[in-house]
Formats: sequence, C-alpha cells, structure tokens
Amino acid sequence: MVVTLRLPSLTSFFSPSISARYPAALRRRHHLWPPPFSVRASAQSTAAETENRVDGGQRSRVQDRAVTPRSQDFNAWYLDVIDSAELADYGPVRGTMVIRPYGYAIWEAIQDYLNVKFKETGHSNMYFPQFIPYSFIEKEASHVEGFSPELALVTIGGGKELEEKLVVRPTSETIVNHMFTQWIHSYRDLPLMINQWANVTRWEMRTKPFVRTLEFLWQEGHTAHATPEEAEKEAIQMIDVYTKFAYEQTAIPVIAGRKSKVETFAGADRTYTIEAMMGDRKALQAGTSHNLGQNFSRAFGTQFTDEGGQRQHVWQTSWAISTRFVGGIIMTHGDDTGLMLPPRVAPIQVVIVPIWKTDDDRAGVRSAASSVKEVLQTAGIKVKLDDSEQRTPGWKFNFWEMKGVPLRIEIGPRDVASRSVVISRRDVPGKQGKVFGISMEPATLEAYVKDKLDEIQLSLLGKATSFRDSNIVDVTSYDELKEAISEGKWARGPWSASDADELKVKEETGATIRCFPFEQSQGIKTCLMTGNPAKEVAIFAKSY
Amino acid sequence: MVVTLRLPSLTSFFSPSISARYPAALRRRHHLWPPPFSVRASAQSTAAETENRVDGGQRSRVQDRAVTPRSQDFNAWYLDVIDSAELADYGPVRGTMVIRPYGYAIWEAIQDYLNVKFKETGHSNMYFPQFIPYSFIEKEASHVEGFSPELALVTIGGGKELEEKLVVRPTSETIVNHMFTQWIHSYRDLPLMINQWANVTRWEMRTKPFVRTLEFLWQEGHTAHATPEEAEKEAIQMIDVYTKFAYEQTAIPVIAGRKSKVETFAGADRTYTIEAMMGDRKALQAGTSHNLGQNFSRAFGTQFTDEGGQRQHVWQTSWAISTRFVGGIIMTHGDDTGLMLPPRVAPIQVVIVPIWKTDDDRAGVRSAASSVKEVLQTAGIKVKLDDSEQRTPGWKFNFWEMKGVPLRIEIGPRDVASRSVVISRRDVPGKQGKVFGISMEPATLEAYVKDKLDEIQLSLLGKATSFRDSNIVDVTSYDELKEAISEGKWARGPWSASDADELKVKEETGATIRCFPFEQSQGIKTCLMTGNPAKEVAIFAKSY
Repeated sequence: MVVTLRLPSLTSFFSPSISARYPAALRRRHHLWPPPFSVRASAQSTAAETENRVDGGQRSRVQDRAVTPRSQDFNAWYLDVIDSAELADYGPVRGTMVIRPYGYAIWEAIQDYLNVKFKETGHSNMYFPQFIPYSFIEKEASHVEGFSPELALVTIGGGKELEEKLVVRPTSETIVNHMFTQWIHSYRDLPLMINQWANVTRWEMRTKPFVRTLEFLWQEGHTAHATPEEAEKEAIQMIDVYTKFAYEQTAIPVIAGRKSKVETFAGADRTYTIEAMMGDRKALQAGTSHNLGQNFSRAFGTQFTDEGGQRQHVWQTSWAISTRFVGGIIMTHGDDTGLMLPPRVAPIQVVIVPIWKTDDDRAGVRSAASSVKEVLQTAGIKVKLDDSEQRTPGWKFNFWEMKGVPLRIEIGPRDVASRSVVISRRDVPGKQGKVFGISMEPATLEAYVKDKLDEIQLSLLGKATSFRDSNIVDVTSYDELKEAISEGKWARGPWSASDADELKVKEETGATIRCFPFEQSQGIKTCLMTGNPAKEVAIFAKSY
Repeated sequence: MVVTLRLPSLTSFFSPSISARYPAALRRRHHLWPPPFSVRASAQSTAAETENRVDGGQRSRVQDRAVTPRSQDFNAWYLDVIDSAELADYGPVRGTMVIRPYGYAIWEAIQDYLNVKFKETGHSNMYFPQFIPYSFIEKEASHVEGFSPELALVTIGGGKELEEKLVVRPTSETIVNHMFTQWIHSYRDLPLMINQWANVTRWEMRTKPFVRTLEFLWQEGHTAHATPEEAEKEAIQMIDVYTKFAYEQTAIPVIAGRKSKVETFAGADRTYTIEAMMGDRKALQAGTSHNLGQNFSRAFGTQFTDEGGQRQHVWQTSWAISTRFVGGIIMTHGDDTGLMLPPRVAPIQVVIVPIWKTDDDRAGVRSAASSVKEVLQTAGIKVKLDDSEQRTPGWKFNFWEMKGVPLRIEIGPRDVASRSVVISRRDVPGKQGKVFGISMEPATLEAYVKDKLDEIQLSLLGKATSFRDSNIVDVTSYDELKEAISEGKWARGPWSASDADELKVKEETGATIRCFPFEQSQGIKTCLMTGNPAKEVAIFAKSY
C-alpha cells in the first residue's frame, strides 16, 4: 500500500495554483511525482535562494510527497523510488521490466567497471545463442532439476511447430559446453576463459523490479581449465573481483563466502557468493561464482589431451552478476527522500541548479553555471546543468535529491559576484551538508568536487558497514538464532549440522544459510544446532 | 564446396614431419588451418628471418592453404575465413551463430563508436523486454504482414501453456509504443530519443553467418517527435551517422539513399538505407533508418498534448545496425589470404613477431619486443605480442595475415643491435609493403605506426571505392540494366515505373532496387523502363 505524506507547504515559495494547470491525465500513473509545482522560476525564487541557503536539505519545504518514506514501508518505498526516479517500469508481460535510461545508466556503470576487470584477468567477451535445444538442459542431472520449473520454451518458429522445443537460456553452461567440446582439444587450448553480456529468462512466479524479473540482464563468465586447482583459483579470483567491485564502486559491504550444499548452484561443486544486507536487513545474493568441477564436462564430454597424452575432462567455472545489483544499490543506500547513489555508479554525480530573481541576473547566472558545467565535464565528472525554466530551484532541489545525485551546486547572482558556488551533499541533510563560497576557479573547484565525491563514496560505505555490523548477531544456540531472525537481524553462528537441519531452520524461521563467510574467527566452535564440533560459522538470514 | 590449394613447401623452413605429431582429432573440423607446421622456433628460424625479409608477404612459403582463395569461390572463402580466423561458429540450433572473441571484438569496436555518437546526438540507452504479447504484433497492419512468417513464439512458461503466445522480439516498435504511451503526455515529454543494444530473433530460412542468422545482435534506436519535420530530420540524421561510421571506421564506401516503396520497412513511411558493395559485387543492406510517420502511434494510441492543448499522435523513427556489419567488413576488404581489417575496427592493429636463432639472442629479442609492445600499448594502439615458442615466425606471419591484422612488426637480433624494427603492411603484399630500419625510439615508432594505420585505413577505403565505382554501370534502358546485372554489376538508372515493374525486374534479373541514392546527378531523366520522365536514378543490384 502506498501512503502519501503531506507536509506543510510554503505557498510563498511554490506557486499554489499550478496543479490546476495540469490535467489529471498528465500526472504520473501511481503518484504525483515530480509534483507539478511551479512552472517558472520567477519572483518566488528570491525566497528560494534565501531559504535554501538556510535550511538546505530540510524536507519541510516539500508539500506533495510521493515517495513513501522508507522507514514506513520498505517495499512501497522501493517501488516508489523505482517509479519516481524513473529507473524502471513494468513491461506488458507479467514479471518483465523495462529498464529506463536512468536505471540503465547505473547498469552501464557496472558494466564499464567489470568489463575492464574481466579483460584484465584474461577473459574475452563473446556471444552464445539464447536458444538451447531442450535435450541439452536434461544432460546434467541437478541442472535440469534446478532449472526446469523456470523455463520459457519456444515451440513455434517461422509458423511451424518445432521438432525439438527450444529453451530460452536461463543460463548458458549447457550450450557453452556444447561449443567447448569443439574448441578444446589439447592442454594448449586451456585455460579457455570467456564472458558474455546477455539477457536471460527465468519464469519466476514472484517478481520484483531489478531483484527478480522474468527476463534480466547479466554477464556470465565461463572458463575451462586443465586442473581442479586452477578452476578453484579462478572461482575464487572472480568472487574477489565481485567483492572489490561491491565495496569500491557500489559502497556495498558484501560478505563473501561459500554457499551451503543446499544453496549451491544446480550443477556446481561449490558456489561462492557475495551477500549484501539491504536497508530492511534482508539479504540479497548479489553475485555468485561457481566451481563446476567436471559436472558439465562429463555430461557433455568436454575433454582435452593432457601433456602426458591422456584424455581428461576439463574443470570449469561460471560466475555472474546481474541487473539485480541495481536493486541492491537502491536498497542499501536509499533513504526516506528517495535514491542515494554512490558517486562511482551515479549517472549524474553533480547537478548544477542556477538561481536568479531578475532578468538582469539571469544571463550572468546562466553563463556562470555553464562554465562551471564545462569545467567539471572536462575534468571527467558526470555533471548535469538543470537550467530549465519550467521548475523552481526548490522543485529541482527536491527532484534531484529524490534521484540520488551525490552533489548539488547552486549558483545565484551573489555567487556570480563573488566567483563562488554553494555545494550540498545528498548524504548529509541540511546545513551540515552545505558549504558556501567554494571558488569557481577551475582547479580549485575540480579538486573540491572530486574530493567531496570520494568522501561521499567512503561515507556511504562506512554507513552501510556500520548498519550491517550492528545487525549481525553472533549466536551459539538455535534459540538465539531464532531470536535474532525474529528481530529481523542476521544470525552468525557455528554450523556443522545436516542438510535436513538447515531446511528445518528455513521452515521454522524463514532464514537460510547465506554463506559460510571467508572471514572466520579463530578458536573452537560448537555447532549451534547439534553441539558437535564445527569448523566454521555460517550466516543465516531472510533473503530476497 | 571447399577447395584446398597446395603450394610448394619450403622444407628447409618448415619442419616437414610435424603434422605427424598432431592426432587428426586435434585438427580443425573443416580444414587444417592454421596448418600445424612447426612446434618450436629453433634453428629453422634463421631461414625464417632471412627469407621473410626477402619475400615478406609472398604466399609461396605456405604449404597447406586452408582458406579457399576468394577469387575462386567467394562463398566458400567467406565461410573459411569465418572459421579459420575464429570469428564465429555454428550454434546447435539451425541458423544460430556463436560469435567468437575475435569476431565479437569487431562488434565491440562498432559498439564503442556508435554508442558515443548516439549519446552525442541526444539518445539514451535503455532496455525493453524481449517478450512481446502476440496481440501487439497484430496491431500495425503492414508490420504483422512483414514479420509474422519470421516469428519465434514462446508458448510454454514455467511448465504451463501460456494464455497468450509471446513473440521473441524481431524488432521492438510495438513494445516501444506500448511503453511510450505511458511516458509521453505533453509536448514537454518530446522528443523522446532512446536506443537499446539487444538480441533479436527472426526465423530466417536461409542463413549465413553474420549476414543472416536466426538470432543476431543489434542496436535499435526509437524516437518520438512532435512534428513530422522533426522525425524526418532525425531519420536523416541517423542514416548520416551510419554513413559516416561506415566510411570512417569500417572503410566501406556505402551508398546512402531512400528505399523504394516495395523495399520499405514493414510499418514505415520511408526507409533510408546504406548499401555496401561486397567483394562479389552483391549488395549488402548495412543499416537502415525509418521514418515511421504516425503508423505505430496510431496503432498504439501514442499521443501527446501539443502547445495549443490539442491531442496529437507522435511522429516516430527507428534505426538499426547489426552484427551483419561484421559480415560486410569481411566481404568488403578480405582477399585470397583471408581477412583484412580496417585499423579502426581491428581487435589487433599491430602484431609483433620476435625472431631469434640462438638462445643467446633470445633474451635480447624478447625484451626488445616487450618494450616495443609497451610503447605501442601506452600510445593506445591495440597490439599483440606473439612470443609463443610453439610456432615458427613464418607460421605466425601467415596466421596473423589470415586474421587480417593491419601491421606486423618483426624484431630480430640485428634489429635489436640497430635499435630498429621491420614493419609490414597487411594490405600491401611482398617487399612493397615492408619497411626496414624503423627506429625503436618510442616517439618515432609511435608516430610511424599511427601514421601507417591511418594510411592503411584510407587506402582500404580508396580501394573499396574504386572497386565500387568500377562496378556500377549507368544504364538508360531495361536491356542495359539486364546486361549490367548479368555481368554481376550494379545498374544505376532513372526510374519512375510502377511497383509491378520493380517486381518484374526482380523476377527477371534477380536484382532489386537497393536505393534511390541521395546523391543525384543534375539534368533531365527518363525512366529506363517506361520512358516517362523520372526525378531520380535508382540503383539495382543483386543482394544478400
């Protein structure tokens, strides 16, 4: 359910009658965001300029709030943010999603970073067809069991019933192995290390934008090696790439570890994962890397002749990150106001809002704003100048805060006179996040902005890390585990119990083992469930 | 049919017994390329170094030629090149293609350039779902007529028969319009200009790698405008972007023009096209830009409120370039030896082949080769150092020539001593394309290589342009047209005849109107078919 908060409006600031100018048909489908406040920045913006300097990020100026506060209803907030910030929309087929430009740009930032890292670690991009003969899926026993309930099948092509149904790829291990058998002959052809950026289809019953959709975008890496050690090293290398990416680019302090047998990928020997804590404290599996062993190579006969002249099956890995990560970014950093984007993945890192009261001031302010934009753009900063005259500065402040832009630069006539600007941080509300009198001098401004963006990036990571750590409870018994889960927290405790016990926990608490973290404390451990010795702690949590 | 040429071998150069070391299973499926010559560059490479300096690009050293000469059988050559250069492979489902890393890297070069141009011209990337309700396709009359024979349909999802069949997108105009109706309300929402990089599916009966495959990769731009003039301007702008791209990046001298009514896209008012002449003189439609008028907006009700408050249907365009372009590059520039890549889209622009005869020389040569690589890489040149010890330099020369690498740098002990290198051009065979004594001094080498790459780029364009122009015949009568077509050429002549006449030409000659070129000569024109006045010349050709 969506609840709309109405806060007191400042009628001196926003033109009160303007909503009448907008026919209902023009308003957003679900809510009225951005609220159709004022069309022109005119005399009112005097007030705007002054007021904004005083209480900067404060929300009291906002009258029609469309984004449900996060603190009130996390799920409604999430859907509101996606809608209001124009990240995505629902497709016409149930469970499908249209990724809109602002959301897609976040995905592009993810791609840009990972694509370079994949190449640096020796992988080449390529492309496999998305139609897979049905018989392929059946070849690896646990794979078919895992995926068959989720398949979309093409049965008609070119007006004719097909002899063999085609699976629209849910993942590509099978077709990759079919091709690898043709490319791999000797040890000299190994390792074979490839990646593809592609769409995949899984017929999910319960969907949620970005987090779980019928079709989604991802990258899937596939490698083949001559030894199990090499495959293991690769699987670990790629979960490390993902972990570094999560921390450094998205400011998400994921916990990396190994999945339990129960939670391992259908067809893998071992699955490594990065698990992220969302703002509602549910876990999001944000990326996985699988050591496939010889499961697929045996099923498909992917063999090579080793240096001793013996035929052997190759050892494989696969690993993936998807558009789900965009959902993770939203749910990690967002707040009641809306989206909050880490600078390194923000489509717009800095928004410039020019403010003028008289036509005399206008030209000077606009020209200063343009040259500030130019300076930052040249410095490689993603900057947007919002100089539209249809909205007041106040409206723009709110709009770009809701869109999660990390920094805002305000330029008014007094700033032009003093050759300085005012800079506000998205992540620090109010006066505290606002600094006056930053020089427009290019080198100074560039350095200041870059520095602030780095600071915000780190600050978001720090905040998310504190939040995570204060919501993980170390438990020593099943009772403590149940208590932690019932409080909505993650439970971390020694575990060496059976798969059946693991499923019992799931049934009774709704929590699953998210991973056995790579980081383990020293000392003797006793299984929280059985009291037997345990080698490792596991993390239990409810998850998306 | 594949014919293998056997040329005299130089047994002093290539180890003759080496093929016995390779079990048949290790050889390529179709042919024996690269030929399994020598495993180690040992004493033989003395000869290699000397001989290669003498007859550089000459083919006489090659014994087992696997690529059918282009001059002998164009189609067999094309398939051989794709196989030998490892550009693509056949997927398990009929008509599908696996794009291998070397082929995909060409596509990435295409993407990198166009993606920037699209953004510069105001378009944003986004992503639409690939599953389209069948009813959508039926909404635009000529669209359904054009596409229904080619559709792949999903009828089963999650184990259940679907209530409505889903079309796997053959193109996205329908779903784009469905979404546009939700995003476009007033003239302020226009123009709406987006693009997506995606896979599309068309159930083609006769397929050919890159040129026509059941699934292919493309970008599809979609825009909505307030006026027909704006839509027309956009359609023209994008065909201009494609034209510039074809000339400047791929060195393909396409002819841009307007399609005839008969050849216009199913659902468009006007289709603009770039037509390329392949090495066999068949035409390849390499990119199209459609002015869709109000056809889809009327079918889907995509309306906006104009400045006067009136509801109007938007005016639209769509435009696309696909992986077919990779086929165009192969078929424009390749020669009997194999692929020849324009430097700007070459995954490897320069290959470095170190040559040594004694172990004493080895370290010095390898270290010089590495530092040359470093210099070029730092300069932003795509460089590959082939220092594997399993192949002779001669083998490597042939291999990288077949792969179409524009420049080869050879470094031997004498070069190390004189601090210089030998550079060979792929596009100029033999001595003529080989220059000795280019200084290794970084600034000199970088400048030389960059200059040569530019020269090759221009030279390929020049050669392709001459070839094109010498194979277009100006005709004034149907007889002349028939003669030109029967000679395998393109016929250019004034045309104002009926659609029926156009279809008659197709039936009788196999040629279609490729376009009415934008570039038209002055003067009075008389239709070659009817003798009536004609406004324009058309180009007729057989095509892919």
